[in-house]
Amino acid sequence: MTLNDARRIIAAAEVKSHAIGQPMNIAVADAGGNLVSHVRMDGAWIGSIDISIKKAYTSRAFDIATKDLATHSQSGGQFFGINTSNDGRIMIFAGGIPLRKDGKVVGAIGVSGGSGEQDHAVAEAGAAAY
Amino acid sequence: MTLNDARRIIAAAEVKSHAIGQPMNIAVADAGGNLVSHVRMDGAWIGSIDISIKKAYTSRAFDIATKDLATHSQSGGQFFGINTSNDGRIMIFAGGIPLRKDGKVVGAIGVSGGSGEQDHAVAEAGAAAY
Amino acid sequence: MTLNDARRIIAAAEVKSHAIGQPMNIAVADAGGNLVSHVRMDGAWIGSIDISIKKAYTSRAFDIATKDLATHSQSGGQFFGINTSNDGRIMIFAGGIPLRKDGKVVGAIGVSGGSGEQDHAVAEAGAAAY
Amino acid sequence: MTLNDARRIIAAAEVKSHAIGQPMNIAVADAGGNLVSHVRMDGAWIGSIDISIKKAYTSRAFDIATKDLATHSQSGGQFFGINTSNDGRIMIFAGGIPLRKDGKVVGAIGVSGGSGEQDHAVAEAGAAAY
Repeated sequence: MTLNDARRIIAAAEVKSHAIGQPMNIAVADAGGNLVSHVRMDGAWIGSIDISIKKAYTSRAFDIATKDLATHSQSGGQFFGINTSNDGRIMIFAGGIPLRKDGKVVGAIGVSGGSGEQDHAVAEAGAAAY
Repeated sequence: MTLNDARRIIAAAEVKSHAIGQPMNIAVADAGGNLVSHVRMDGAWIGSIDISIKKAYTSRAFDIATKDLATHSQSGGQFFGINTSNDGRIMIFAGGIPLRKDGKVVGAIGVSGGSGEQDHAVAEAGAAAY
Repeated sequence: MTLNDARRIIAAAEVKSHAIGQPMNIAVADAGGNLVSHVRMDGAWIGSIDISIKKAYTSRAFDIATKDLATHSQSGGQFFGINTSNDGRIMIFAGGIPLRKDGKVVGAIGVSGGSGEQDHAVAEAGAAAY
Repeated sequence: MTLNDARRIIAAAEVKSHAIGQPMNIAVADAGGNLVSHVRMDGAWIGSIDISIKKAYTSRAFDIATKDLATHSQSGGQFFGINTSNDGRIMIFAGGIPLRKDGKVVGAIGVSGGSGEQDHAVAEAGAAAY
């Protein structure tokens, strides 16, 4: 996952974000879960800086969309409580998606700034550009 | 709980993990709840490193399988919220099992990398080798 | 501090980084000390992701270059120990510079990835573009 | 960095540790700085579990032996204060060494349990086996 890759992914996510009229924080992590790049679009929530970075980490940490992890992490679910692991870096709501190359997870995108549905849609647009 | 004990436990857990085809993080803690050894099998989730170690800690901290602690820690349960105690070291889902010697808890195994059912099964295989 | 501003600042810093042949992490914060954008250039240290973001925060938090804060934060200095304040977000070595508009601090740049001298030089190049 | 690689590295470090008569904690991290395996030899300090893991992380995070990072991180040095970055995961004393393959850093070993000199010597023995 190069910086150029990350920029292409972020650019595509920004296009989608503009299209739906909701400014976002967008982050891309590499295979080790470490941040490659982050942008906060003008007007996006400052509380979502951290969330976007952590959604990217989470999606790589468990090779899963955070939207799907969410379904297993509710009270009664098999992963309920997982969000207190990893020193608070785990986010269990929509907006993070793993990035695959030749079937292998090599990074992830994390988006935060709108509803869960909006975050996931913008993340998908970014992921599609990879 | 010697390092040799931990290695024997981990080896048995690895055999089970291979058998079910799901790579795992496996950790063994001693009577003090402190880590004796950890392995991340090739391809296992990086987010599960921390979780396996904390499941082992949790099982020793309360002398209980995390699978059983889970039933009391859901929303509405008597221990709901316990996973924010101990500086975030408590995991409340399946995969941790106390290790006993002459009826006394002397350590624990923690497994993370698959479904709750898989994690518990691999932990049981490890515990059986002690 | 718009995202476009941050991108222009980062681009200038990248040019300098390439010129000296040392890949860097570069972060820009706004008037609230909150991250606007971050890039990790290919090959830059992963440990410097966090440091670049925190240098930007620090420079805005105290309206000072971290290089100058450093001189007061050594053992025996009047601010010795300041780096354990702000929940560990304070960095006390070179690479952070406040960004001014009409004499007022409106943000900061933080750079990490080389020697203190290199980090500061790259931060200066970025600041000059604002 | 496979688990087999990590085990070979740890085994070599253990041999050295036995030879000098000082039990150690030994950890190996991958290219992302994430733990692959850890062992605490019988009788080794429990406070060194965390330190060994963090020395491995640090050596990968900055592609440097922690022994060398130490020289720049003393009061007055260019990196003084670096150990409060990365959420407390940075160790600035001897015992961590980067692991290289074809000239590129692909992981690191971290050793803790004795004097700085002993820790570094055991880490070197481990690194030599890679």
